Amino acid sequence: MSVIVDLSLFPVGKGESVAEYVARAVKIIRDSGLPHRLGPMGTAIEGEYDEIMAVVGRCFKALQADCDRVYMTLKVDGRAGRSGGLEQKVGDVEKRLVG
Amino acid sequence: MSVIVDLSLFPVGKGESVAEYVARAVKIIRDSGLPHRLGPMGTAIEGEYDEIMAVVGRCFKALQADCDRVYMTLKVDGRAGRSGGLEQKVGDVEKRLVG
Amino acid sequence: MSVIVDLSLFPVGKGESVAEYVARAVKIIRDSGLPHRLGPMGTAIEGEYDEIMAVVGRCFKALQADCDRVYMTLKVDGRAGRSGGLEQKVGDVEKRLVG
Amino acid sequence: MSVIVDLSLFPVGKGESVAEYVARAVKIIRDSGLPHRLGPMGTAIEGEYDEIMAVVGRCFKALQADCDRVYMTLKVDGRAGRSGGLEQKVGDVEKRLVG
Repeated sequence: MSVIVDLSLFPVGKGESVAEYVARAVKIIRDSGLPHRLGPMGTAIEGEYDEIMAVVGRCFKALQADCDRVYMTLKVDGRAGRSGGLEQKVGDVEKRLVG
Repeated sequence: MSVIVDLSLFPVGKGESVAEYVARAVKIIRDSGLPHRLGPMGTAIEGEYDEIMAVVGRCFKALQADCDRVYMTLKVDGRAGRSGGLEQKVGDVEKRLVG
Repeated sequence: MSVIVDLSLFPVGKGESVAEYVARAVKIIRDSGLPHRLGPMGTAIEGEYDEIMAVVGRCFKALQADCDRVYMTLKVDGRAGRSGGLEQKVGDVEKRLVG
Repeated sequence: MSVIVDLSLFPVGKGESVAEYVARAVKIIRDSGLPHRLGPMGTAIEGEYDEIMAVVGRCFKALQADCDRVYMTLKVDGRAGRSGGLEQKVGDVEKRLVG
């Protein structure tokens, strides 16, 4: 089963600008080697459930280290028999938009 | 205030493949003329709160028309003094990833 | 169609403690007269789509008034032919947990 | 740090009625012994990050076993120095609603 997780993560109480903390998490995702796509409201990561969730856990704990309050949202879509879902899901919609 | 909404919307009980319904919503978003970005787990839309939410409402009702159960998630980020947030938010993170 | 919306709403950049702002939103929900249920991670509101979303918009704008950054998440479940969904949904699960 | 996770989990493509699958997950949560609260739009679970996420993983996999598509959303709130957060968070809001 291919799993895609959309991750949003930021501290509450560290000011309005949270890009520094988001970048810390995105570096961890990038270093994981898992396929991912950065977007304006979250980062989508594709892989097996356990390997994605291990990366998500490292991101959460990297913020916990110096943030007393951390908020995270995940959307998880698991589908049997899918591969290359980051591109396929967008492509499946886009081809229906033509014509 | 610039508002960005990340929208996910699909029917429950119409089979596993929901791309047809997602495309119906994305057409409505595209026809609205609002800046948006399609991603694998949702579509980000930028604008004023009321104009975005009017578009979101049209999307929801377009699925209600022939779906007895509809599920939607929204993440909403409102920030004073921001413009071009769809690109700026990703750029603010990416520039911290270099070096 | 009965719609239930789960709403989470708080400012980013106003410190770690956000209960004062959450209470401001819950007062607006309570004053709307719509059936609702306060929980530790969000407030569920039941009604027609447009009437719920009007209340949600009032909540969002009540925080915008003095918060430069506001974050909100919504989960929306619309189902034809349902009534009293706040109790029914929990009851449908609980009766399957017995025995 | 006290972590509270709000979990929503259901199959897509198994019909409109998903209470049977939700109950399967809630049983797993209940059997974990972690403090939790069932609501109309999700179940809130309190504990340490890793122990909650282990339970969430068991829930997800219990649906994967016979569902080809599974959708899950998590909202995660981690806060240093909090205890009894399921009650405290609701109480902190409610006491501001009086008078």
